[in-house]
Amino acid sequence: MSRAKYSKRSEFKWFIDLQSRWEDNDAYGHINNVVYYSWFDTAVNRFLVDNGLLNYKDDEAYGIVIESKCTFLKEFTYPEVAQVGLKLQRIGNSSITYDIGLFHIGDDEPAAIGYLVHVYVGAADRLSSSIPVHVRKGVSLLQ
Amino acid sequence: MSRAKYSKRSEFKWFIDLQSRWEDNDAYGHINNVVYYSWFDTAVNRFLVDNGLLNYKDDEAYGIVIESKCTFLKEFTYPEVAQVGLKLQRIGNSSITYDIGLFHIGDDEPAAIGYLVHVYVGAADRLSSSIPVHVRKGVSLLQ
Amino acid sequence: MSRAKYSKRSEFKWFIDLQSRWEDNDAYGHINNVVYYSWFDTAVNRFLVDNGLLNYKDDEAYGIVIESKCTFLKEFTYPEVAQVGLKLQRIGNSSITYDIGLFHIGDDEPAAIGYLVHVYVGAADRLSSSIPVHVRKGVSLLQ
Amino acid sequence: MSRAKYSKRSEFKWFIDLQSRWEDNDAYGHINNVVYYSWFDTAVNRFLVDNGLLNYKDDEAYGIVIESKCTFLKEFTYPEVAQVGLKLQRIGNSSITYDIGLFHIGDDEPAAIGYLVHVYVGAADRLSSSIPVHVRKGVSLLQ
Repeated sequence: MSRAKYSKRSEFKWFIDLQSRWEDNDAYGHINNVVYYSWFDTAVNRFLVDNGLLNYKDDEAYGIVIESKCTFLKEFTYPEVAQVGLKLQRIGNSSITYDIGLFHIGDDEPAAIGYLVHVYVGAADRLSSSIPVHVRKGVSLLQ
Repeated sequence: MSRAKYSKRSEFKWFIDLQSRWEDNDAYGHINNVVYYSWFDTAVNRFLVDNGLLNYKDDEAYGIVIESKCTFLKEFTYPEVAQVGLKLQRIGNSSITYDIGLFHIGDDEPAAIGYLVHVYVGAADRLSSSIPVHVRKGVSLLQ
Repeated sequence: MSRAKYSKRSEFKWFIDLQSRWEDNDAYGHINNVVYYSWFDTAVNRFLVDNGLLNYKDDEAYGIVIESKCTFLKEFTYPEVAQVGLKLQRIGNSSITYDIGLFHIGDDEPAAIGYLVHVYVGAADRLSSSIPVHVRKGVSLLQ
Repeated sequence: MSRAKYSKRSEFKWFIDLQSRWEDNDAYGHINNVVYYSWFDTAVNRFLVDNGLLNYKDDEAYGIVIESKCTFLKEFTYPEVAQVGLKLQRIGNSSITYDIGLFHIGDDEPAAIGYLVHVYVGAADRLSSSIPVHVRKGVSLLQ
């Protein structure tokens, strides 16, 4: 598995440092794979909240995850921090795909790489909905 | 620490078997202490749901946890199951205290013992509320 | 998104019912996407444990996750159970890919579909290792 | 319930900011009670790691949780941060009790208050062990 094909740190447009928790270490003494997806989900929603693109208690439409994928390249162990980078891969009529990289502090090569797809749905009916205009504009920060 | 003082299996009134998950094992190779509280919370809410005492998407008042405590006596390791027993310790005007025991399959002595206190609040305003009549009646099953 | 392309229940070779927990429900009132990966991880390891293919405290080599993916088709909400099916997609020299389907009780169409790739590593050095002979034989149950 | 009796921020000796995660919000739209115990566990172990008192992969003896308790006073919601304070309540021959307070940023009154008891055990045999001398000395920072 050549890592040459994986995105470098410089390709991501927005970053956040996310903590590990003691319980994230599993029986193999490293952060369990499931936690990486928690970091994906937390980073994307945090980008949206911080940029005024998600107010999850009041929004009439919001994104729910319909697909995600992660390739695990390097371990994390508690209490290490994951530096999570986002970039916009694709925006459609109702869905947004975020490319995501997890990095150890200072590393240029990723520790994990993947993506997460949000489809926008109405808060009341959970039916597919167009991406709100301010969200469509806001995520262009990740291009 | 004498275990003689801890409740035996026969003192609990309602039981449910709750699973462990792979990720529940922590760096010490046993189920992390935090998971025991997840079992507490899940068992109490499951008792309520199964007995028609909690419909959390529609109820006008529901119980939120204001205090809990756990004494850890024996380890669990994945894929072990926790047999969780409940009994009613106390019911007030707006709060209910559940005594909780976790047991290994077939054990009479508990693996953990504790309690959880729900205070009833209005779903809309989160202000303290009286325990609904049907809930007051229903939890008497645990006496 | 046509669901015709997704595997039906009958294509999976081994099943386990996995519980939801109260805390799995997120702010949108359904089981959070991260939990689906916990079910993936728990089901694969449970298949291995139940068939004598994983003894994680003593094994000289075991599988760690190097890639996973999930497509989310239907919601779960607490206290629903996920029926998790496994089939063998591919076995190489050091890696095994498990196809995974999550089903609501009684449904033939999946609620989620994905895969998880284990690469075998030495417990002591975490270097890539051949799949142990008994594991290679045992996972053929999933073909 | 008078809050006058609860410890103020100034009574705690060591602090760390711990993040919330998207999935920590439960069906009631606030951080689930179980997460507070994850913060307790993470803060205590982080204090120990940062002060050279825990090297969990190599230590011959370490502390495992035998009792904890939490009183929940104010909600947190994602993406809020919990400021976690520790102070030493009691140190015995083999156990250490940490008083713990969770605070909203800038609040002097706690959002939650509780404690966690570590009993030291041998890494190999899990039998009760004396608190290592450097740990006994190190935790005096919390007095």
